[in-house]
Amino acid sequence: MELSRDAIERLLDTWPVARLATLRADGAAAIVPVVFVRSEERIWLPVDDKPKREPAARELARVENIRRDPRVALLLDQYEADWSALWWLRLDGNAQLALPSAPGFAAAAEALRKKYPQYRETALFRTGAAPSLLALQPKRITSWAASSELVEFLS
Amino acid sequence: MELSRDAIERLLDTWPVARLATLRADGAAAIVPVVFVRSEERIWLPVDDKPKREPAARELARVENIRRDPRVALLLDQYEADWSALWWLRLDGNAQLALPSAPGFAAAAEALRKKYPQYRETALFRTGAAPSLLALQPKRITSWAASSELVEFLS
Repeated sequence: MELSRDAIERLLDTWPVARLATLRADGAAAIVPVVFVRSEERIWLPVDDKPKREPAARELARVENIRRDPRVALLLDQYEADWSALWWLRLDGNAQLALPSAPGFAAAAEALRKKYPQYRETALFRTGAAPSLLALQPKRITSWAASSELVEFLS
Repeated sequence: MELSRDAIERLLDTWPVARLATLRADGAAAIVPVVFVRSEERIWLPVDDKPKREPAARELARVENIRRDPRVALLLDQYEADWSALWWLRLDGNAQLALPSAPGFAAAAEALRKKYPQYRETALFRTGAAPSLLALQPKRITSWAASSELVEFLS
């Protein structure tokens, strides 16, 4: 069964983590955990140094991938030992690198800092790089939940 | 920093959930939450009816995808509000559909039932289809952890 529209909106507004799939140069899928925020009908992801992963000079693989092929998939889900409580929510669409001049950028950065107080201590933007966010425009939303009770609970 | 070999083995043996990326016919990435077990140096995934998702007659999209292009990525990670506790572990490789005659199949099915007592109530194999599992042969293992203390804790 599918999630309700209310449940989808609530999960996009409150769920703390997602997994992002992008496409490598050879066409294989890459997948990473990400934080995100919904703002103005798009999903925004930081391109941050959380925590330092590689020299800041090197562009994140996910950014390189999106420059080459903007198609991404974003998955929200929760695992529970009780399988009647399982659900997932997937957004397929295109992502692009957004600079501060992009429409919606300032509101998204503010929403990220509000959703994740951790950004008081961690840089929201990569040190030594131009401030940027990834903006995902969903083309298709797919969802599934194990039961109608669960959909109601999530709504 | 990378996870230790001990931490990687322990997580592959005990972590309950992962996210699997496969490739659609148009080359875009698809991503789903999965359960899995490590057995004989491969990662095995059920092709199950957990819980019923679509008519059993239709092959799961992930199976169709793997038949067409065996390249997959499997991500294990845990999200914590404390970002110093973050880690992830990614396996890139090829997956194939394994039938009961495949080497390692019986041990993998037993290991899945042992790791997930839920399979006492849920079919491990899709109803109406030949029993089969997905077997992932990792070609590359990539990992990251926020701190050396965390790596030690996970080892």
